[in-house]
Amino acid sequence: MTEPANVAVDWGTSSFRLWLVDRAGNVLAERRSGEGMLAAAKAGFAGVLRSHLAAVEAPADLPVLVCGMAGAKTGWVEAGYVDTPAPLSAVLKQAARVPGEVRDIRILPGIAQRDMKAPDVMRGEETQLLGALGLGAAGEALVCMPGTHSKWVRVKDSIVEHFATFMTGELFSVVSRETILALAVAGADEAEDIASFKAAVKAAFDAPAFAANLLFTARSRQLLFGGTPAAARATLSGTLIGTELAAGLSGSVPKAGITLIASGRLAALYRQAFDALSVNVNPIDADEAVRRGLSMAAAAIWTE
Amino acid sequence: MTEPANVAVDWGTSSFRLWLVDRAGNVLAERRSGEGMLAAAKAGFAGVLRSHLAAVEAPADLPVLVCGMAGAKTGWVEAGYVDTPAPLSAVLKQAARVPGEVRDIRILPGIAQRDMKAPDVMRGEETQLLGALGLGAAGEALVCMPGTHSKWVRVKDSIVEHFATFMTGELFSVVSRETILALAVAGADEAEDIASFKAAVKAAFDAPAFAANLLFTARSRQLLFGGTPAAARATLSGTLIGTELAAGLSGSVPKAGITLIASGRLAALYRQAFDALSVNVNPIDADEAVRRGLSMAAAAIWTE
Repeated sequence: MTEPANVAVDWGTSSFRLWLVDRAGNVLAERRSGEGMLAAAKAGFAGVLRSHLAAVEAPADLPVLVCGMAGAKTGWVEAGYVDTPAPLSAVLKQAARVPGEVRDIRILPGIAQRDMKAPDVMRGEETQLLGALGLGAAGEALVCMPGTHSKWVRVKDSIVEHFATFMTGELFSVVSRETILALAVAGADEAEDIASFKAAVKAAFDAPAFAANLLFTARSRQLLFGGTPAAARATLSGTLIGTELAAGLSGSVPKAGITLIASGRLAALYRQAFDALSVNVNPIDADEAVRRGLSMAAAAIWTE
Repeated sequence: MTEPANVAVDWGTSSFRLWLVDRAGNVLAERRSGEGMLAAAKAGFAGVLRSHLAAVEAPADLPVLVCGMAGAKTGWVEAGYVDTPAPLSAVLKQAARVPGEVRDIRILPGIAQRDMKAPDVMRGEETQLLGALGLGAAGEALVCMPGTHSKWVRVKDSIVEHFATFMTGELFSVVSRETILALAVAGADEAEDIASFKAAVKAAFDAPAFAANLLFTARSRQLLFGGTPAAARATLSGTLIGTELAAGLSGSVPKAGITLIASGRLAALYRQAFDALSVNVNPIDADEAVRRGLSMAAAAIWTE
């Protein structure tokens, strides 16, 4: 086993992921838990981190690099923002050191778009972008990063020029659980109804203003024509994702297509959505991207 | 005091309203409660109605006409639907009699749009339309009926040709309470931020695909620029209503403008929204409309 070079942590709102990595970015050990910012704010960030460091037997002098919501105002130590237009190289230069800790622990900043018409913030995605696109990439990329709060990001010559957050994942969660549509999706099993999903993506993409109506058809269709809970669930997620895609694809799309940074089930779902619209995507695994971004930043901070 | 002619009931999902009316439609007594379909399905529809009839001292032989969700499959007695294109005159001919009751109690049908691409149902709004537009009206009306589930209805020569339900009110409720945006609106007092509301209506009307992004700006703007909870709340409701209006106004708008059937705070909010877009509206009080519709139907059923 090679020597560990540093510890990398992706500390989101509701999830915590830690990797012990060597100089080449290889993963020597991994930890995943639900101790995201919300839980850690109560339990104590230092204690949560310490317990996971102990579990992977991280040497006492091994530095730790963190990205994500741990750097928010309501997180551990506020790590500030790099403002748009934001060179990705600036992200790894502005890490905030956690005070009062013997170990060298730093938190990467987020990116802020201080535009009164389109104010926006990201924390964690900038590190994924760093890992996915690298620092030297020339040319333009339009990046779709699905999630609870999906981000669409326009990057040119390694500079984040503009981005927008869509509450797609969170809307799906509350609409399918907390509204009258919960009745329509109740009992939906894990099997996807891909045909219903793609039809909903297309319908919402063609008429995004009708999103709040298309959602309701999941129930009306069941009342009038029958239909499975899985079809209703596919209509909800297809409507919300199709609406997001209508916005995300409303500007110019680079010839190379869309860069899709996602993992697991969400990656598959968005690939189907883009496929329904015949839009070309270049998929990049989100987990790998964030690890690579953290390794690049760690190398820049501690190797020089 | 004139003689009561019948009892009129608007029995919605979460509200119950009853009026004792004379032949001319004048209200002799009124009852309002939260015993809508959901509550009455548990407590028993007959018992709920009986207690309110006793409270207004309704004579034992006075007939009762009901509209709304009491006629749903999950309601008291399924009252069926009139299918689109639905003459409003058909609504008052297809009332379902409640069996097993000595008193003559009837429930008006809803309207169904059996279109696989745009399936939709209404229950209660057809009676408001009857009261607001009457039976003999020639010409075309585009009707906006705001609510938990807003309806947009195209009526031509007293025939409901097409309609669409938008979950605007319910989305506002869950988004402002159950998502991360709850933090942004927490502590908003009753005062409206009309400027923020109108700005959000316009932004969403112009770019409805961005609704899930515009919602999120309520939080980002507060993080980056400050701002009151009332402004954030106005952004949420303005975004959702502006998106609904983008869909509702996407077809042809009659020269006379939009017929807005609404009451109270919702009526004021939608008038401001239409005003922000410089769209002419003809407001009609929803409470009066449903009472008038029930009286018209009662006269047709029991006077002939």
